[in-house]
Amino acid sequence: MNTYSSKLVENAVNELSRLPGIGKKTALRLALHLLKKENIIANNLGNSIIDMRNNIRFCKECHNISDSEICEICANGKRDKGVICVVEDVRDVMAIENTGQYNGVYHILGGIISPMEGIGPNDITVGSLEGRVSLGKTKEVMMALSTTIEGDTTNFYIYKKLKGHNIKITTIARGISVGDELEYADEITLGRSIINRTPFESTL
Amino acid sequence: MNTYSSKLVENAVNELSRLPGIGKKTALRLALHLLKKENIIANNLGNSIIDMRNNIRFCKECHNISDSEICEICANGKRDKGVICVVEDVRDVMAIENTGQYNGVYHILGGIISPMEGIGPNDITVGSLEGRVSLGKTKEVMMALSTTIEGDTTNFYIYKKLKGHNIKITTIARGISVGDELEYADEITLGRSIINRTPFESTL
Repeated sequence: MNTYSSKLVENAVNELSRLPGIGKKTALRLALHLLKKENIIANNLGNSIIDMRNNIRFCKECHNISDSEICEICANGKRDKGVICVVEDVRDVMAIENTGQYNGVYHILGGIISPMEGIGPNDITVGSLEGRVSLGKTKEVMMALSTTIEGDTTNFYIYKKLKGHNIKITTIARGISVGDELEYADEITLGRSIINRTPFESTL
Repeated sequence: MNTYSSKLVENAVNELSRLPGIGKKTALRLALHLLKKENIIANNLGNSIIDMRNNIRFCKECHNISDSEICEICANGKRDKGVICVVEDVRDVMAIENTGQYNGVYHILGGIISPMEGIGPNDITVGSLEGRVSLGKTKEVMMALSTTIEGDTTNFYIYKKLKGHNIKITTIARGISVGDELEYADEITLGRSIINRTPFESTL
């Protein structure tokens, strides 16, 4: 006998369990949930996924996800095209946009260099970043990658690629998180926050 | 600006986050995962969900999910139609089938009586169960609901409805789980396992 009493349910469970973090048990729970609700819920879900995957585009400039050839950020005349913030993926763009503190444009690498996972420099969009910088209109490239070994490796690789150009290469500040207590901060973070101390007036 | 840089992604995130246990952040992670993979993964997922929801049927006899009018279990001539196991939902059928210890048929209530959640006797398939028993071919109804207040209430309600019929009404045994240590068992479970002690020979 089919474990799920139904080929249709079995298919849906198999497909759902391909998603990261969703095992067979969770997939079954989701499938049964959809069976309990009206058809329109499942139809909207299915169609939105298919529609997204088949019609999504990636910005020709920065590789951000977009509904058109150039993303909303690159197309926005008010953004400073001279500053490029380099991030790993689209979620980082959303996080930085949410701060409201950044007015430049982005460059989405689509990953970071990780020999462990078999991701090399050619698997990320470094070449396209060099191309943008070569146009001579960039004043600053701001690195905003994770503070991991992979992030540091990627930072260094990009730094070496770009340092011949006459631009400023910066990295977002590492330090004590706002709201954190000093005694619980790790030594490396605390150490960096001392080395990179800022004039008190600038925090007022 | 649109938070997700794309209406398509926003739609998919909204639909995914309607699923139980999936919030906006997880939904976004799933959507971006699908964007990284080939189109066919998202298309198969979307279609399997739509296909399942629109074509699923429920067994006319026992209300189990099924691809045809009568489910595989009810249609199986080798199963004992005289014994009906009453369960809350389809997952319980799978759990019991996995034990390989049951050869009767099922009746899926589709819920248990829970005034807190507004589920009354008319929201579950008790009427249809009575109908099956009224046909006079049932020897035993075995209750297999959760050991919660709602489960006990439902057990008792069904017991009252069926006790006029000349059938045996049983409930699955409550006791110490196989592999559990006595000292960590709660008193109610331990107490029931003493009251319902079984001849040692039956366990050999």
